[in-house]
Amino acid sequence: MKIKKKKTSEEENCIFCKIVNKEIPCYKVWENKKYLAFLDMNPINPGHVLLIPKKHTNYIFDLKNVEYLRLMNNTKKIAKLLKEKLNCKRIGIAVEGFFVPHVHVHIVPLNQGNELNPERAKPMNKEDLKKIQEKITK
Amino acid sequence: MKIKKKKTSEEENCIFCKIVNKEIPCYKVWENKKYLAFLDMNPINPGHVLLIPKKHTNYIFDLKNVEYLRLMNNTKKIAKLLKEKLNCKRIGIAVEGFFVPHVHVHIVPLNQGNELNPERAKPMNKEDLKKIQEKITK
Repeated sequence: MKIKKKKTSEEENCIFCKIVNKEIPCYKVWENKKYLAFLDMNPINPGHVLLIPKKHTNYIFDLKNVEYLRLMNNTKKIAKLLKEKLNCKRIGIAVEGFFVPHVHVHIVPLNQGNELNPERAKPMNKEDLKKIQEKITK
Repeated sequence: MKIKKKKTSEEENCIFCKIVNKEIPCYKVWENKKYLAFLDMNPINPGHVLLIPKKHTNYIFDLKNVEYLRLMNNTKKIAKLLKEKLNCKRIGIAVEGFFVPHVHVHIVPLNQGNELNPERAKPMNKEDLKKIQEKITK
């Protein structure tokens, strides 16, 4: 018998867990059984994606090896998808994790140095997010 | 017979290839046969490490799958080492790649949000770099 672990309050209040559980909507660009990728609502550049494991873990380097390597392998998949669908020079990645306590990789279309700067993040309107989602997923 | 590929001019002028070939010194913190980790001379925070594959490749997502996954696996190793040896809350990672055309992962000790900002990078003097190298490797 599989015993379901009781949720911690961190997990109960986690905005990314709520996205996984469809309590909060997102602009999804890709998913499989254990991972989900969606648009950052405050992108550094258009097409800025967050890739998360669906299971709640706070710190990326606390993931089990297989979970961590699958996350990074899926990062590469998303990066290739973004490079193919959007007009940009490179795809950058960043992991920080102070604001949402659920592992997430920022996967960001870039055109020049120093663009991968969290202070450049700005809210994007729903219409533009929808357009970019369609561009990536069509 | 193994034929050695001719070096491109990008490779010949590559500062990280020169570090690998010991033509330029570095503050090494870890290496194995195919990967090398050393201190960034312009750290975002003290203990900011660059992890590179020794073989020249420009763009991270052009690495073969096995090379890419080994790079990310070694990123985790270095992150654990830094977290253990330095006083910080988390280790962040970033990959951008506009300034040096040789794959490198920034592995950075962090204490609060928005620290993973390339514009915070500042030159560090050799004495302090040496001290941090010793702290990490002892």
